[in-house]
Amino acid sequence: MNKEDLQKRAEEINRILYAFLPEAGAFDERIVSAMNYSVQAGGKRIRPMLMQDSFHAFAEEQDEPKILQAFMAAMECIHTYSLCHDDLPAMDNDEYRRGNLTTHAKFGEAFGILAGDGLLNYAYEIISEEMTHLDDPELLKKAVNAYCVLAEKAGFRGMVGGQSLDVYLDQTGDADTKQEHLEYIYENKTSALLEASLMIGAILAGADEKEVRTMEMIGKNVGMAFQIRDDILDLTGTLEELGKPAGSDERNGKKTYVTFLGMEKANEEVIRRSEEARILANELPYNTEALTDIITYLMDRDS
Amino acid sequence: MNKEDLQKRAEEINRILYAFLPEAGAFDERIVSAMNYSVQAGGKRIRPMLMQDSFHAFAEEQDEPKILQAFMAAMECIHTYSLCHDDLPAMDNDEYRRGNLTTHAKFGEAFGILAGDGLLNYAYEIISEEMTHLDDPELLKKAVNAYCVLAEKAGFRGMVGGQSLDVYLDQTGDADTKQEHLEYIYENKTSALLEASLMIGAILAGADEKEVRTMEMIGKNVGMAFQIRDDILDLTGTLEELGKPAGSDERNGKKTYVTFLGMEKANEEVIRRSEEARILANELPYNTEALTDIITYLMDRDS
Repeated sequence: MNKEDLQKRAEEINRILYAFLPEAGAFDERIVSAMNYSVQAGGKRIRPMLMQDSFHAFAEEQDEPKILQAFMAAMECIHTYSLCHDDLPAMDNDEYRRGNLTTHAKFGEAFGILAGDGLLNYAYEIISEEMTHLDDPELLKKAVNAYCVLAEKAGFRGMVGGQSLDVYLDQTGDADTKQEHLEYIYENKTSALLEASLMIGAILAGADEKEVRTMEMIGKNVGMAFQIRDDILDLTGTLEELGKPAGSDERNGKKTYVTFLGMEKANEEVIRRSEEARILANELPYNTEALTDIITYLMDRDS
Repeated sequence: MNKEDLQKRAEEINRILYAFLPEAGAFDERIVSAMNYSVQAGGKRIRPMLMQDSFHAFAEEQDEPKILQAFMAAMECIHTYSLCHDDLPAMDNDEYRRGNLTTHAKFGEAFGILAGDGLLNYAYEIISEEMTHLDDPELLKKAVNAYCVLAEKAGFRGMVGGQSLDVYLDQTGDADTKQEHLEYIYENKTSALLEASLMIGAILAGADEKEVRTMEMIGKNVGMAFQIRDDILDLTGTLEELGKPAGSDERNGKKTYVTFLGMEKANEEVIRRSEEARILANELPYNTEALTDIITYLMDRDS
């Protein structure tokens, strides 16, 4: 899988995603514009992609149910809301993301907050709306389990928790940051939604509990490897590759895996984690080629 | 029903609500503290109260199912998140609420945002977790419908939508604000969660679609009357009653129902709306006394 393949897949995902986006009525044009702008400002759509591939690995013969597409769209809404809020002045204070103005930079700070709130809530609107149409009680049970995984992984025991510790340690100057803190932050801030994506695809396809746990482990390893690779790239990448000057973590006094392990061991950890993810995927008695392709792509990226 | 009765009821609701609050683990103490602080900082618990009374009106003989309590807790988490975010510097910039420091004033702006995010998401965690335990397919169907109502009324077609138009018109100096804008704002910012509370109680009790619509209309009227009464109290209340100087809307150039209708007609509108709510409740072939007691209390308040 190369960059063009991934781009093509992202466009396919966008067709599904955009069909779920809200339409403005007479009085909500501003909030709907801010929400849709945030989603349409781009992104690799890795999470819905992994969800879709996870579903098809476990359900090769099945058609894609609408509820899967609803969860794909909901996942991207949650990822997007987290970016909206991360970019706010009180958080990372970023004006640009992927070359576009961030939501608060374009719509003002209040709408940076409100668009994020709107998108987080909308994720659950999409799922609830689709659930009311599920007549098959078995599929409804699966959807409830998937919804439960999504909610847990997005919240204080997942993404919000990781983000919160990251912000809190930043505020305290990172002096007390230990490797176990970093592991918690990476696992929750980055891995949690990847885990949820892989788990939800599997759950909706009818995978058993052990298989769902395997998908969670794969997601955890992919997220950790991705995040540690980020730490390394921050030191070795060029301005062109990164879209920002190299060494920004070091200048900001931010501790990373490289701080704790050194460059060589951090690199080994990326390789170990990605290998672990691939082995877990390959051991499943299903065709997980599409999945491992994305994992390999994510691990080998230069930017 | 007097102030003490309401206080007692609020304490009963708190016992239910607090049983659902998150417990901190090793690494999430800060975010869990900020979330729980926000919920425990007080409040009249009107929404879960209305939900509970609505349930018991339609299901006099039934025990309270755990899923009702989950929705009551979720509703209060959503109401609380909206206050957390409304109080932020980029929104209303309030340092105090009900005599306590607001979340951002106590935990910093980033945690004002994160606690709100955590609480909004946690509302859906509570519901999803409880849904996985529902073995009765009929009750699960009802819970899905209730979840759908909650999500819609909390989002851009509900509370977030109302809040967004309010913020947007404020930003543009309120010059273009018409009465229909105010009606949209009040209906969504204030009525939407009251409507959802009454509807969800009814849905979980097995009310039919027409009855659920009646509860929605009651909620709409209660919210509108409450909000217009707020406009009146802002002009006629004392510093002591309001907890803030009277006439703040006028000084801030904020248009209210009194601006459009004048004091007398605005008062008539409050009476008309509360009467309408009481008539709708009384016409139902159930014991709606507890409900109408709260409605009467809300309409007659001086502060």
